[in-house]
Amino acid sequence: MKTGKEYIESIRAMNFELYIDGGKINNVCDHPHVRPAIDAVAETYDFAFKPDLEEHVITRSNLTGDTISRFQHIPQSTDDLIRKVSITRYANRYLGICSFRCAQNIFGPLLHITHKIDKDKGTHYHDNALNWIKMMQKEDLLGCPAITDPKGDRRLQASKQPDPDMYLRVVDKNKEGITLRGAKLCQTGAVFSHEKFVMPCTTHRAGDEAYTVICAVPGNEKGIINISNRQSQDDRRTEGAEIDLGNIKYGFHESICIFDDVFVPWERVFMCGEVEYLDEFNNMFGACHRPTTGGCKSGWADVLVAATEMIAYGNGLAKVSHVRDKITDMIALTETMYSCGVAAAAQGTKLPGGFAYLPDPVLANNAKYYISKAVFDLIRLAEDVTGGILCCCPGEKELKNPEIAPYLERFMKGIDGVPAEYRIRMVRLIENLSWGLGSILHSAAHGGGSGQACKMLLYEFSQATPLREEARKSARRLCGIPV
Amino acid sequence: MKTGKEYIESIRAMNFELYIDGGKINNVCDHPHVRPAIDAVAETYDFAFKPDLEEHVITRSNLTGDTISRFQHIPQSTDDLIRKVSITRYANRYLGICSFRCAQNIFGPLLHITHKIDKDKGTHYHDNALNWIKMMQKEDLLGCPAITDPKGDRRLQASKQPDPDMYLRVVDKNKEGITLRGAKLCQTGAVFSHEKFVMPCTTHRAGDEAYTVICAVPGNEKGIINISNRQSQDDRRTEGAEIDLGNIKYGFHESICIFDDVFVPWERVFMCGEVEYLDEFNNMFGACHRPTTGGCKSGWADVLVAATEMIAYGNGLAKVSHVRDKITDMIALTETMYSCGVAAAAQGTKLPGGFAYLPDPVLANNAKYYISKAVFDLIRLAEDVTGGILCCCPGEKELKNPEIAPYLERFMKGIDGVPAEYRIRMVRLIENLSWGLGSILHSAAHGGGSGQACKMLLYEFSQATPLREEARKSARRLCGIPV
Amino acid sequence: MKTGKEYIESIRAMNFELYIDGGKINNVCDHPHVRPAIDAVAETYDFAFKPDLEEHVITRSNLTGDTISRFQHIPQSTDDLIRKVSITRYANRYLGICSFRCAQNIFGPLLHITHKIDKDKGTHYHDNALNWIKMMQKEDLLGCPAITDPKGDRRLQASKQPDPDMYLRVVDKNKEGITLRGAKLCQTGAVFSHEKFVMPCTTHRAGDEAYTVICAVPGNEKGIINISNRQSQDDRRTEGAEIDLGNIKYGFHESICIFDDVFVPWERVFMCGEVEYLDEFNNMFGACHRPTTGGCKSGWADVLVAATEMIAYGNGLAKVSHVRDKITDMIALTETMYSCGVAAAAQGTKLPGGFAYLPDPVLANNAKYYISKAVFDLIRLAEDVTGGILCCCPGEKELKNPEIAPYLERFMKGIDGVPAEYRIRMVRLIENLSWGLGSILHSAAHGGGSGQACKMLLYEFSQATPLREEARKSARRLCGIPV
Amino acid sequence: MKTGKEYIESIRAMNFELYIDGGKINNVCDHPHVRPAIDAVAETYDFAFKPDLEEHVITRSNLTGDTISRFQHIPQSTDDLIRKVSITRYANRYLGICSFRCAQNIFGPLLHITHKIDKDKGTHYHDNALNWIKMMQKEDLLGCPAITDPKGDRRLQASKQPDPDMYLRVVDKNKEGITLRGAKLCQTGAVFSHEKFVMPCTTHRAGDEAYTVICAVPGNEKGIINISNRQSQDDRRTEGAEIDLGNIKYGFHESICIFDDVFVPWERVFMCGEVEYLDEFNNMFGACHRPTTGGCKSGWADVLVAATEMIAYGNGLAKVSHVRDKITDMIALTETMYSCGVAAAAQGTKLPGGFAYLPDPVLANNAKYYISKAVFDLIRLAEDVTGGILCCCPGEKELKNPEIAPYLERFMKGIDGVPAEYRIRMVRLIENLSWGLGSILHSAAHGGGSGQACKMLLYEFSQATPLREEARKSARRLCGIPV
Repeated sequence: MKTGKEYIESIRAMNFELYIDGGKINNVCDHPHVRPAIDAVAETYDFAFKPDLEEHVITRSNLTGDTISRFQHIPQSTDDLIRKVSITRYANRYLGICSFRCAQNIFGPLLHITHKIDKDKGTHYHDNALNWIKMMQKEDLLGCPAITDPKGDRRLQASKQPDPDMYLRVVDKNKEGITLRGAKLCQTGAVFSHEKFVMPCTTHRAGDEAYTVICAVPGNEKGIINISNRQSQDDRRTEGAEIDLGNIKYGFHESICIFDDVFVPWERVFMCGEVEYLDEFNNMFGACHRPTTGGCKSGWADVLVAATEMIAYGNGLAKVSHVRDKITDMIALTETMYSCGVAAAAQGTKLPGGFAYLPDPVLANNAKYYISKAVFDLIRLAEDVTGGILCCCPGEKELKNPEIAPYLERFMKGIDGVPAEYRIRMVRLIENLSWGLGSILHSAAHGGGSGQACKMLLYEFSQATPLREEARKSARRLCGIPV
Repeated sequence: MKTGKEYIESIRAMNFELYIDGGKINNVCDHPHVRPAIDAVAETYDFAFKPDLEEHVITRSNLTGDTISRFQHIPQSTDDLIRKVSITRYANRYLGICSFRCAQNIFGPLLHITHKIDKDKGTHYHDNALNWIKMMQKEDLLGCPAITDPKGDRRLQASKQPDPDMYLRVVDKNKEGITLRGAKLCQTGAVFSHEKFVMPCTTHRAGDEAYTVICAVPGNEKGIINISNRQSQDDRRTEGAEIDLGNIKYGFHESICIFDDVFVPWERVFMCGEVEYLDEFNNMFGACHRPTTGGCKSGWADVLVAATEMIAYGNGLAKVSHVRDKITDMIALTETMYSCGVAAAAQGTKLPGGFAYLPDPVLANNAKYYISKAVFDLIRLAEDVTGGILCCCPGEKELKNPEIAPYLERFMKGIDGVPAEYRIRMVRLIENLSWGLGSILHSAAHGGGSGQACKMLLYEFSQATPLREEARKSARRLCGIPV
Repeated sequence: MKTGKEYIESIRAMNFELYIDGGKINNVCDHPHVRPAIDAVAETYDFAFKPDLEEHVITRSNLTGDTISRFQHIPQSTDDLIRKVSITRYANRYLGICSFRCAQNIFGPLLHITHKIDKDKGTHYHDNALNWIKMMQKEDLLGCPAITDPKGDRRLQASKQPDPDMYLRVVDKNKEGITLRGAKLCQTGAVFSHEKFVMPCTTHRAGDEAYTVICAVPGNEKGIINISNRQSQDDRRTEGAEIDLGNIKYGFHESICIFDDVFVPWERVFMCGEVEYLDEFNNMFGACHRPTTGGCKSGWADVLVAATEMIAYGNGLAKVSHVRDKITDMIALTETMYSCGVAAAAQGTKLPGGFAYLPDPVLANNAKYYISKAVFDLIRLAEDVTGGILCCCPGEKELKNPEIAPYLERFMKGIDGVPAEYRIRMVRLIENLSWGLGSILHSAAHGGGSGQACKMLLYEFSQATPLREEARKSARRLCGIPV
Repeated sequence: MKTGKEYIESIRAMNFELYIDGGKINNVCDHPHVRPAIDAVAETYDFAFKPDLEEHVITRSNLTGDTISRFQHIPQSTDDLIRKVSITRYANRYLGICSFRCAQNIFGPLLHITHKIDKDKGTHYHDNALNWIKMMQKEDLLGCPAITDPKGDRRLQASKQPDPDMYLRVVDKNKEGITLRGAKLCQTGAVFSHEKFVMPCTTHRAGDEAYTVICAVPGNEKGIINISNRQSQDDRRTEGAEIDLGNIKYGFHESICIFDDVFVPWERVFMCGEVEYLDEFNNMFGACHRPTTGGCKSGWADVLVAATEMIAYGNGLAKVSHVRDKITDMIALTETMYSCGVAAAAQGTKLPGGFAYLPDPVLANNAKYYISKAVFDLIRLAEDVTGGILCCCPGEKELKNPEIAPYLERFMKGIDGVPAEYRIRMVRLIENLSWGLGSILHSAAHGGGSGQACKMLLYEFSQATPLREEARKSARRLCGIPV
């Protein structure tokens, strides 16, 4: 397992190129917009070396028998599934921001689907997948799912788009491998992830075979062009800034990735054209991934609740009933998000082929749907309790201007014992968590599948369970209609 | 284990007395207001003999080694806890109404607290509890928690009430036992439960020792006076009624129980005056009980969803997008209620003394709080989709009046293939589930502790978890305040 | 203007026939299920003779110059529109139930559309309408809108239904008049209304001309068959019942009306086949009608808030912060419902022809949509504050049984000064208002158009306002896209 | 009346000093953080000269008979009150941001309370007020309410704070005038407003006389120290930025104002120490001010709805049912906010002394309470429909980098006809409206009084209306309790 330091060095060694600020850089580890996110990831690597976290973070690989991080583990039980949710809650509570460690949710579904295709079609995807996963575990690599296509006109399937590259596609295939062209958006952590896991963002249909490609690509592969996104308050991440960052330790970074004819050798290809298997894989990955949201959002929310409580304390309002009531509602939202994730894990089942445990897909999609709405209530309550200071607070340059600093120290203060600077630091943290860089809001709204996508899958999976039919029969029997 | 038939005979043999309809009866098994509830319970007894339910309903007692029903079992693992939630969902889905089988949630906390008191005080409550529980398991008896006191002026503690009997109390104590006076309200199933489990509904304080009593009393003990409640639509439960009942198979019954100097021998007493242990017991029982709500309410909701879907189908609207959308929201509410229950179970821990597994108290209270609000959204959506027919539908006497029946057959019909009578039966079921006799609404609002009580406990338990302190430290560290 | 007594006598004289309890009656004024609703209407007639209400209830007819009740008035200003909302709030607050006085919302749109058709087609509907309205005003008659058709398969237009009578239609036309066949459901107050106002419940399309009929029919016309609905808790309305009724003074009655070839002379016909005018009329009527909902639901809610407050007081909880908070949220919901109605009225405009003032159709439909959801929050909060007693309360027969009455007097009591009987009476009122006979819930869900119907109209009308286009241009201009 | 240009010149002439960016400036009209806000105000001045707005913007002063802007007018009718709400909706729809023109909501209450004090105490405040208001109208000046005190320990009243200046106070009084010391926070538009209107942010109590001061101060008075706040995304307002601003035309600016011994002559003082009148004034001002929120938030929301619709169109999703549904829910929230404001205005009444019309205080406070929650639903729905691009979008520097621009033009594009740049501009506008600089969120949460403050006033005012007592009597009468 890598330490945080080794992780950073391995990223530095990869020399990622990134278009940002109107130019191009290749030292992402030193850029103030990127480094704090790298530090967040490094912290999660260091978890593995903290004795008190050992039970939660370390496990044994079912593939190699090696000691590995749970962030690389394929769940072999519901306990494994639940622990994944819990460690993610821990990580986000520790970091106050995205922990970037969900890519392993792909491993189980990948082994399953490649095995199935190989059996049906005589392909060799499964061994490719197995080898790649073993490498990920052995070298303790960070993966970045490359899923979201530009999509162009959402009414049209991939092969019918006016621009044929609006979904990533295979433009060339030869004995050695395949060539990819197109783009992937919403690439969280792409410029500090060792590996890209490329998969379609939707269920392609017949005719879309060229678009049906799942494979792994080194993050700095030739032909990959990374373009930085501009997000809320990233401008504050300038030289010397601190207080105004809110989260002074960790950050977030997202980019767009252009695939300008990227070559992928066959041993890194896991699906190529088998359009009829895509739906199952996508849905299975969704089911694996979405319970994690229950962990990450509740961990994030833990920090928001704590910060809001401390602001209330600093205002002298900690024991006021409506404040207490709102804090409790924030806790209720947090624990319900977590419950949705844990329940999906606890009701997980072994995949037919036995490669992994899969969370319950109904509960998994329900979790993400619930969460996509709940976070807006969370930030509403946080803003309510925090008060007007949340958007009426001078920046740190003013705080440090000696001409006016004494005024601000007096007038931004709360109760005795809570200095103005502490109040302001906490306010900036709440601001950051709520709608700042890498906020809970945006991660919950669309990260890991939109609420609407999950709602539709919730319906579909729900209709497929025996429970629905049972309930229909019960309803008929109870009211006297022949079953 | 008893069959349903044996259960009914055992109840008949107990000759419960009940004040109802302005008079007194002692044949509850034949009264149209009570019998359908007895039939519901009987059905749950029969579960144990259905081969396909064996895995879900049958287990082995950790106390006696006997094969027992899970409805009598003390959970020995998180798996046991989760199965309790699941079997309750099944039961309520099967019955479309309360399944009356939660009393065993008391067993674990009871063994725990009696052991603790005995150790501290040299009392002999634990053996009493053990013997009583073994009897419950061996004879497969139905228990009825007797919790809710009249409470009078809610601002005053028990011993300060103008009327000293507003909380049940011990008015006499002698070598043989104790004498109880007072009343317990909201007695669900009291007149068809073998045993009453008497416990305080609140945490009494110093001075309230006489009110601090936990014991078991045979349901038909001398001095017990049962008075029937009048609930929504119970009037429809008259001779020969069917369609208008909605649920034509099962019912619900609740009463008030006066304790007019009821004697309880010491071997049935589990706490008597040890006021300082009450808070722990109450909260532990709440934590055991409330996840069950996630099961029962979701089972109920399964039927409501199914019925609503069938009405939509009968109207030709099954595939209309806003209808589909609302059905999906009903499913989401259902699965979130269930998730809250399952998660509390999955995060359960072994009690210090090892007597039982206890669900996570934060998540347990959160479950009930969530549910107390969610059901109102459920019935809103059901009413929305069902349409005006939900309150504009002739009764069965009109349906059977030959002069007008042909009109009703024509004009109450939906699409071809769905006769008027079927639509009406389904509408009556939705009416019953929503706000009829024993509806999900009322059970969710106050059954098993009000939403508000759970909200307050959610806050308290939450503050006590290491997680809160961890989050506070994290917030300070992240924004740069010395931890 | 009629007094309440005169109103009742006039209804008695009409000898309405009603199928109910499996038989047929013609003395509705003496039937315990119907009379309390008649009493409610009578009360609204008496409003006109109360000096302190004069300003609110009495006005001058713009058609005849006569002094008339506002319940018969065609609004001639936004002030008239607002007063309609306010007097309805008053009426429902006074009655605690539907006040049955909305039919005049038809008058304005009727005069408008008949004038338009006459102008285009040379018909004589306008004079028919004018004469009928003058009669309504002069004789102070109660009208009952007959709108809701059975609808059968909702996917099919009227003329394509397998059963041609699933929408009311004209089966014969001759020199004297037309003959109607079909049914109208959800007929609130039909058996004690002097006049039926028949109109389609949907916008018919080409081919549906036979279904496009608007006319007035005396409530007791030959061929009309009234069949009583069975609603929640109507069974309690038996001889001698009182406390358990909740609302001991007033009631509600709804029925189904079969039109078994009802003849209507031409002078009572206002539209017959002019399908292209129907949409405008329907939408205009909706816009007139829906603000009234803001009045009636808030009046109803006023009583629910007051009753809930008194229960809290009786429990000693009036000043507890979470109770105060919930009561305030109930008030907020109430005032928002009212605001939606008042705003639609205040933004009303004069109809092109000048026949009446029309509320703003966007705000009118928004009002009903908001209300259709808000009432469920209202009853949730009421149930929360009221407590378990809301469904755990013995009936009045038990209260009056001398053997047990003393127990109930003690144990159903709250604080000193609030006797058990008062608490129970108030609880029964809350039960009645919430989900009892004629509850706010059902009236809000589907009365006056379902929430969904209003939502769709809200969208349509909203798109048609200049404001939308203005906002689109503004958005483009603000972000730098050529307008 | 001033033109926009004249307004800007008048501000430039005042040489406001502002601490910002770690230094001090006195050319606010040229600073990129301030100028866009000044441009927004200037636009509202120009409204008065647009012929098509004349009816909505121009009126006659009841004080001077002069033609004045409605933004300076004291409402003399409910029509005036409603027009104030409507013109504010227009202004915010036009600007997509705060329109800064609410200060005149103070005029009516000020004339009322000063008249009352003078009558009771023989003071001369009323003439002072009258003269100041006439000057405001005549010179068409912009006022900035200076209300929010630092408040320190919220549990303590002003005179008991450890630091005596935590609420603004009078530190000296002499024949010529008074001297103010302290601070006012949340000063929206302070550095481009001609006049500050100083008033307490809370109801002071006996002992707080020194804190009870209402007066007017020229915005650039000696002793005033303005310190700029740092708000979300204000960093983007740098030289040359355009697309990333979202709103490329108008902006927002807020600051903190220190009163470092500011002298105010008596003729500008309207209350000084008369603590017993403060509650009435504060509440009256709240009632005048809060309906305006219904206008400004709905105007803002109009732009958000339009932008969200256009994004959906650009994605090819304009007609998808769930998108249509969400847009409609956004419209419903918008129109309900507006309705709450309009209704408070429509139900307004003439002040006893006749100085102005006052909106209904129950409905006014309800409006702000509703709005403080509704905006979070609005931005949730906007983010849902907009999709992941809302936080995954490259900045304009990348868009303009010729090396990668062609990629972005292809891959950020939606349907044919909607170029990438247009999509991105619209996304940036939504970002700005939602949580960017001067967003609707923050304005709704705490601007014009927090939701909680309004909720408490809603309760208080509501209890004082005859309606509540009427409803209580009605409830008792209806259920048979002697009234």
